[in-house]
Amino acid sequence: MVMGSIPEQVDLAVIGGGVGGYVAAIRASQLGLNTAVVEKNKMGGHCLNYACIPSKTLIHIADLFYDLSHSENMGIKCQGASIDAARMYDWRMSVSKKLEQGVDYLCKSNGVEVIKGEATFISSSKLQLTNGEELDFKKAIIATGSEPKTLPGFEFSGNVIDYKAALMLQSIPKSMAILGAGYVSVEIGTLYAKLGTKVDVVARSEVLSRFDPEATALVKKRMQELGIAIHSAAVPVSHDSGSIKLSNGEQIDADVIVSAMGLEPYTKGLGLGNTRVQLDGKGFVKVNQSLQTDDPGILAIGDVIGEPMLAHKAIRQGEVAGEVAAGKSYQFDNKVIPAVIFSDPEIALAGKMSGDGITTTKFPLTALGRAIALDRTSGFIKIAYDGNEIVKGVEIVSTDANAMISEAALAIEMGATLEDIADTIHPHPTFSELMQEACCAALGRPVHFYYGGAKK
Amino acid sequence: MVMGSIPEQVDLAVIGGGVGGYVAAIRASQLGLNTAVVEKNKMGGHCLNYACIPSKTLIHIADLFYDLSHSENMGIKCQGASIDAARMYDWRMSVSKKLEQGVDYLCKSNGVEVIKGEATFISSSKLQLTNGEELDFKKAIIATGSEPKTLPGFEFSGNVIDYKAALMLQSIPKSMAILGAGYVSVEIGTLYAKLGTKVDVVARSEVLSRFDPEATALVKKRMQELGIAIHSAAVPVSHDSGSIKLSNGEQIDADVIVSAMGLEPYTKGLGLGNTRVQLDGKGFVKVNQSLQTDDPGILAIGDVIGEPMLAHKAIRQGEVAGEVAAGKSYQFDNKVIPAVIFSDPEIALAGKMSGDGITTTKFPLTALGRAIALDRTSGFIKIAYDGNEIVKGVEIVSTDANAMISEAALAIEMGATLEDIADTIHPHPTFSELMQEACCAALGRPVHFYYGGAKK
Repeated sequence: MVMGSIPEQVDLAVIGGGVGGYVAAIRASQLGLNTAVVEKNKMGGHCLNYACIPSKTLIHIADLFYDLSHSENMGIKCQGASIDAARMYDWRMSVSKKLEQGVDYLCKSNGVEVIKGEATFISSSKLQLTNGEELDFKKAIIATGSEPKTLPGFEFSGNVIDYKAALMLQSIPKSMAILGAGYVSVEIGTLYAKLGTKVDVVARSEVLSRFDPEATALVKKRMQELGIAIHSAAVPVSHDSGSIKLSNGEQIDADVIVSAMGLEPYTKGLGLGNTRVQLDGKGFVKVNQSLQTDDPGILAIGDVIGEPMLAHKAIRQGEVAGEVAAGKSYQFDNKVIPAVIFSDPEIALAGKMSGDGITTTKFPLTALGRAIALDRTSGFIKIAYDGNEIVKGVEIVSTDANAMISEAALAIEMGATLEDIADTIHPHPTFSELMQEACCAALGRPVHFYYGGAKK
Repeated sequence: MVMGSIPEQVDLAVIGGGVGGYVAAIRASQLGLNTAVVEKNKMGGHCLNYACIPSKTLIHIADLFYDLSHSENMGIKCQGASIDAARMYDWRMSVSKKLEQGVDYLCKSNGVEVIKGEATFISSSKLQLTNGEELDFKKAIIATGSEPKTLPGFEFSGNVIDYKAALMLQSIPKSMAILGAGYVSVEIGTLYAKLGTKVDVVARSEVLSRFDPEATALVKKRMQELGIAIHSAAVPVSHDSGSIKLSNGEQIDADVIVSAMGLEPYTKGLGLGNTRVQLDGKGFVKVNQSLQTDDPGILAIGDVIGEPMLAHKAIRQGEVAGEVAAGKSYQFDNKVIPAVIFSDPEIALAGKMSGDGITTTKFPLTALGRAIALDRTSGFIKIAYDGNEIVKGVEIVSTDANAMISEAALAIEMGATLEDIADTIHPHPTFSELMQEACCAALGRPVHFYYGGAKK
């Protein structure tokens, strides 16, 4: 593609090269569309460069570091362990770099052109690029994602940083205050506490208040064991030189203040006023089941179209949007968008846990061989099912929950019954036996936990 | 139950309190049968006390110990780490003890009587117990399991030990020779190498010769990186004072010799000649699909009835036998018995990977975000499917493979298509995305790996 003064024409322009955008572009290009992605920063977007991947990289390191000095009961002795923060940072950056290069390679291999810069809609078929060029398109996909919300009085500047910066620190802070108590806050707080930082978390109501209290109680207990101070029912009022005043009168001193108040859709500078694209009351781009906006040629995917703002939702929507842009009849009709909180223990969810005619059965990790062997007995599985014994939801609080929730997602998508899962052999000894045990229990034939009687 | 001089009568006598036996007993008791288990040693059998659980406990410790001193690239510095073998042993024993007590509790809660001792059939309805009593039964289940095979010239004595003793060492041996190269050998060899033992493995043909060479090549490479010497195409001929002569002329010196030549069914002293129970040519008890032997009142389950000799097969057969003993029409008709080798990397298998009309697609760990983040890129997934795109087999070589293979098992049992899995959202970033990526690739719409073109 030659960049000249004549406006260029593509079949599909994708705005944003994050996990939603590049997947959509690759799929559309595979289907024969002449496709370009416009990305102002790094390919792979937040997920690869600033969020999912860096956080899980650092959590892995923090877990390992913590475990090695807390496994004396198993016979592991380790004096004088320490973190080389510069090397940890280098590793974390190298992982993102490798993945970013991977995405560049995938785009190139699949014939997707990557244009660096920002894009603004001039009309429903033309973008103005920051390199001065214009780009005509037949179809466009908005995949601009989200950005951290700002808390008034705690604008990002100086020692007030967002979650992205919190995952790019080149030294381990002595102390850290985290504003907000959602999953980002819990993940970052837990990881730095394991690395030795004194952590304070400020929760408007409670830690992970939108999740199952039985699950969050275990996470909260662990955070407190790690020395994290949780300030519940408190709002940050002001700060001065690292000293934060809370609405309840408390004061926190911290070297670093991480404001993790959630995300908002990123539509700034997109020029949507020059199109027929509509936003909803919360600023999300409105789409139908085929991810089409109110402008016939423009689709939108990922964080910018609404909750849940999760990378794997964007990836799946990217696939769907790529198909739709290529003229296929396709819908985003997934029943299940699983979610994982990489807390300690992990919480993973798929489907719905309550509602009309839904019953749940719980099986505790204390009754699972592998959990006992690994000294990881804090947790449980809950399985939710309807009157026909069809599985509707699964909640797992456990080591390996992140890997196991996919079986639950598939089960729900396929309409599996309790018996389908109970009668499938799950290998022993693994955490995945939780699914089987819970389903056996729900069917009234529990094996490894005594519920006080069993159905025949 | 009063033990007196009058022969006692039960509805069901289960011989062997391992994972097959106690599960069968619990289920039968739930269904109303007056049930007793006869166990000569510890409840939970080999799995809980000598095999699965202890090996995975020690593998976990060895992995952690090894990782902590090999994660400098991630910024973890640890000088002077060591293993306190006595505490490691105590932990390993305490895990088995806790689980054994758990099984005792489960039996008691479910109304199952546990009789300590051995049992010999006097007839098709009566057992002689080693406590001198006789036990009349209406139904019996043979769940006696298996025992390690002996290699002539390497009888278990002195420094020649079986896998059970290898998992109960109270000090870390300086050197260990392992005879045999199946999964038990690989697991034990890898774990002790990570704890600092100099390990030699003697393979009649090759390491894990019954498995996919692409998978075993990665395991073998890792074993060699850990300093394990693999003696292929060699048979141990004789030994003297810890010095072993091999058929190829090589000599190995080792403090401990672990003979891991496989398992054979345990039917010794059962008095099967006093019943109509038949054995096959390899000494396994013959059963039909309902796990009934040729003697109408006697069933058999687990290792004693044949390959694969895996705990989770025995557990499932225990459930089925419990139902059948209670008069229900039930069969052991599972399509899939998954298998996991806790090698480094783990190998997990479900279903069949080859056969008429079966195609496979591979996706490498080097293309998976989470694997790159954790520096665990040695491995892959292979998915096998028929002409109707129905998934028939899955092989996973990866961290977390043990937890992920259950999704594959469920998928195959339910007749899932590639599309069922490809279109199910798997959370990011997790190893479980392997399933989705491989299915997308098999459908000709690969995302994160470039196969040189894609179907539309």
